Amino acid sequence: MQRYFVTPAGLTETEVVLEGDDARHLATVMRAKAGDPFVACDGEGTEYVAEAAEVSPGRVVGRIVQRRASASEMRWRVTVAQSLPKGDKLETVIQKGTEAGAYAFQPFLSRRTVVQYDDRKEAKRVERWRKIAKEAAEQAHRGRVPEVGAVASWKALLAGFAEYDAVWLCYEEEGRAGVGLKPVLRAFGSSLGEGETPNLLLVVGPEGGFAPEEAEQAIAAGAACVGLGRRILRTETAALVALAAIGYESGEMGG
Amino acid sequence: MQRYFVTPAGLTETEVVLEGDDARHLATVMRAKAGDPFVACDGEGTEYVAEAAEVSPGRVVGRIVQRRASASEMRWRVTVAQSLPKGDKLETVIQKGTEAGAYAFQPFLSRRTVVQYDDRKEAKRVERWRKIAKEAAEQAHRGRVPEVGAVASWKALLAGFAEYDAVWLCYEEEGRAGVGLKPVLRAFGSSLGEGETPNLLLVVGPEGGFAPEEAEQAIAAGAACVGLGRRILRTETAALVALAAIGYESGEMGG
Repeated sequence: MQRYFVTPAGLTETEVVLEGDDARHLATVMRAKAGDPFVACDGEGTEYVAEAAEVSPGRVVGRIVQRRASASEMRWRVTVAQSLPKGDKLETVIQKGTEAGAYAFQPFLSRRTVVQYDDRKEAKRVERWRKIAKEAAEQAHRGRVPEVGAVASWKALLAGFAEYDAVWLCYEEEGRAGVGLKPVLRAFGSSLGEGETPNLLLVVGPEGGFAPEEAEQAIAAGAACVGLGRRILRTETAALVALAAIGYESGEMGG
Repeated sequence: MQRYFVTPAGLTETEVVLEGDDARHLATVMRAKAGDPFVACDGEGTEYVAEAAEVSPGRVVGRIVQRRASASEMRWRVTVAQSLPKGDKLETVIQKGTEAGAYAFQPFLSRRTVVQYDDRKEAKRVERWRKIAKEAAEQAHRGRVPEVGAVASWKALLAGFAEYDAVWLCYEEEGRAGVGLKPVLRAFGSSLGEGETPNLLLVVGPEGGFAPEEAEQAIAAGAACVGLGRRILRTETAALVALAAIGYESGEMGG
């Protein structure tokens, strides 16, 4: 069944209303007819199975036939802080990271960020990233759309470390030296109480990696350096590999 | 240091010789000068640190200064069998899968493969996939280049299952029902002896998933169905998530 995220304005006790792109998609691309079922998610953990009652490219009204809890969110809430990579790689990180279950994305600038950052274009880019997150969340059957923050400075990112239960910095030198992600996740997991949903920050550097002083600043601000194995991962691959490992450890693929 | 894979013809007791694209890359893109170091891998687990002696865009001769074992290959040898996806997604799978440590890639055709398969273009495409694997292996500091097989039929793929120590089929229905990858990997890992390097086949379906009868045929041929979590992964994301999980379980990120 096709899935769409709806705002509170699109939900009543008995009906769900799709407008804009979502209505056009269901009516025109999916060619839905009256009586066809679809799913609407409120993005807060509840989803509604609805049967289309009125269908037009501008507006679809569905009658709610079932209400259920969404069961596809990761228990560990992982925000991916990604140093802004070249080209459209952040789009890859957001799309694949949303599938892998990331809770949110926070792009940032660090010393070796090579991309030209243009303040004037930012609003438009963030809007595009959010659209990618929404579409990927729908496709992956997520219960919520990961938030995508506006590009932050390194200093602002560091200042936010305190809001998380743990901060893990993917740091290449460390990985090759031997401090892998696994013992860190194991220790963290065993410190958690039953049913806790920790807030975690995973920090991934730019193409050239973090400068050693950045790693030091991150450690001073509370981060643990973790390695993702003995191979060198591209920046856009690192977040996905780490997310998969965190999901694996935290029970997403069975116990 | 820049890394290149060399054939036996490019290696003597004391020297390594780069030609073609590799020589051009080191001489022209990296602007190497006499005395600059680089690494040559024989693709069989040995790597050679060399100092450039003669540099021209057509030929670089390096003097071997150190010989060492490559330490970046996964202990569990995972061949990724991927149903041919749309567009250039197989390139993504090969590039990122090589970073994540895949041993080999085997594209295949299954019932719901949507891509138009063109026999005449195959040789050229396989050549391109192999080039991507080689470049990704160099970038990731791999000790060998993953092999990329020519596109196989589903029947031929099934017939090859017997050559592996285990075959895992990523099967969505199963994943949602609850048989996750983790208990399967755990059981497999605990059956292994110290230092064993098992040969594994990870089978990933096309955009529309496997047909139920294909899953049945795979099970009859010895595969175990595994789920990668409660979210729906795109076909090109599944292999990478599974590889990361397998690497995590088998000790690639520490014990």
